[in-house]
Amino acid sequence: MTAIEKLHQATERNKSLLCVGLDVDISKFPDGISRDMDGIVEFNRQIIEATSDLVNSYKLNFAFYEQYGIEGLEAMKRSIQLIPNNILIIGDAKRGDIGNTSKAYAKAVFETFGCDAITVAPYMGKDSVLPFLEYKDKLTFVLCLTSNPGSEDFEKQNIGDQTLYELVMKRSLEWGSENIGFVTGATHPSEIEKLRRINDKVPFLIPGIGAQGGDLKATLKANGNSPACINASRAVIYASSESNFAEVARKVAENYVAEMK
Amino acid sequence: MTAIEKLHQATERNKSLLCVGLDVDISKFPDGISRDMDGIVEFNRQIIEATSDLVNSYKLNFAFYEQYGIEGLEAMKRSIQLIPNNILIIGDAKRGDIGNTSKAYAKAVFETFGCDAITVAPYMGKDSVLPFLEYKDKLTFVLCLTSNPGSEDFEKQNIGDQTLYELVMKRSLEWGSENIGFVTGATHPSEIEKLRRINDKVPFLIPGIGAQGGDLKATLKANGNSPACINASRAVIYASSESNFAEVARKVAENYVAEMK
Repeated sequence: MTAIEKLHQATERNKSLLCVGLDVDISKFPDGISRDMDGIVEFNRQIIEATSDLVNSYKLNFAFYEQYGIEGLEAMKRSIQLIPNNILIIGDAKRGDIGNTSKAYAKAVFETFGCDAITVAPYMGKDSVLPFLEYKDKLTFVLCLTSNPGSEDFEKQNIGDQTLYELVMKRSLEWGSENIGFVTGATHPSEIEKLRRINDKVPFLIPGIGAQGGDLKATLKANGNSPACINASRAVIYASSESNFAEVARKVAENYVAEMK
Repeated sequence: MTAIEKLHQATERNKSLLCVGLDVDISKFPDGISRDMDGIVEFNRQIIEATSDLVNSYKLNFAFYEQYGIEGLEAMKRSIQLIPNNILIIGDAKRGDIGNTSKAYAKAVFETFGCDAITVAPYMGKDSVLPFLEYKDKLTFVLCLTSNPGSEDFEKQNIGDQTLYELVMKRSLEWGSENIGFVTGATHPSEIEKLRRINDKVPFLIPGIGAQGGDLKATLKANGNSPACINASRAVIYASSESNFAEVARKVAENYVAEMK
């Protein structure tokens, strides 16, 4: 089964576009979870068990594991292995380098860590993105219009009569449209609507609801019926600092899914 | 001592702008080096011992270690510890994410892996770059105009009357000019000259000589007397596949340094 098929089936089965971000931060761990690498795995295990029938994907941002060094990445790998096989696993690594180097990153994220999908930074152009797209049964989300304030600095600048992020989407689609997707922040719903007029078939990874303040209703409207992974991280996993955190995380996830229906 | 001071002192002491890239690939290892993680450390040890009086910096591209998984990153960390304390260590990680996430990456590269400098992708703008610049005694190289063919796709596009890469340089300099540098490929000497008119004080990390075909003479002329780390990787470390590879690597490095004088 390809990553795209996995995403579509999980979306259908769970009637959900929700992507829960497993952005671990041991200083925020609730009562009863040890603030160490075993704690990371146990925290993720409880979150995954409490939410896996409510999501179409999980997203692991490499930074939050890498900050704990090699042991942190080991805990990430163990956490990935806990995710049921029928849910899309997104490695949010934002990689991108010259051709032979991107090839090494693709191998690391898809083969060594076992992710189904990856996020990739497009700044360096075609030969930095292609090595990821060459994994035909995997899914590559190219950064397009991100959810952060810094998206004003370069992404939203005009190149001729279009913005850089529109050019990124159009060019990248020429490099491979079968197993590509785009990262488009929930903080920009009107731009998502515009991007959906360019292509309404490929999946969007949409972060920014929850802690970053993106509007779920406006995002859903802008995305229409197209495939998407709408990501919430902190708002779900740190909804409670009590020992029943997983139960509370489930409640928050249920509310998102209810809004999606 | 700050990273910038370390770079200047190493440049003076060794009369060299050479940066050797420790881009390991166990399939290319010479006779007598085991094709495993211990081999990586031994290979790097021999290259470092043979060249550390000829360089101002070493560059480790995370991709080439990450492709071997967690054990590969462990070998990278051990290799970093073998580099003399008076040579700049560049973690070529090309990271960049929203603010709180970039903060975690900065911690990983500067604190956990112990690099003096990092490469950062600017696509996501100011809040993705600032957390790196906040490490005042470290050095952050922002991707500007890269050496690969894909630099045509976005970096060289015009935004108003300037290219994206010029805008990246100008904006980034506003975010912090004391501990910033830029990645500018040796395959574009005339553009390097143009960028040196914007700023001739900050260091450039210039990859692309050697295997990628950049012209060292033209690069040196374009860079003038400004600080730089001129990077060669494959052309130095894989100059020979015999057991005397380190000696041959030294010869190649000596030739580069002679050309720089």
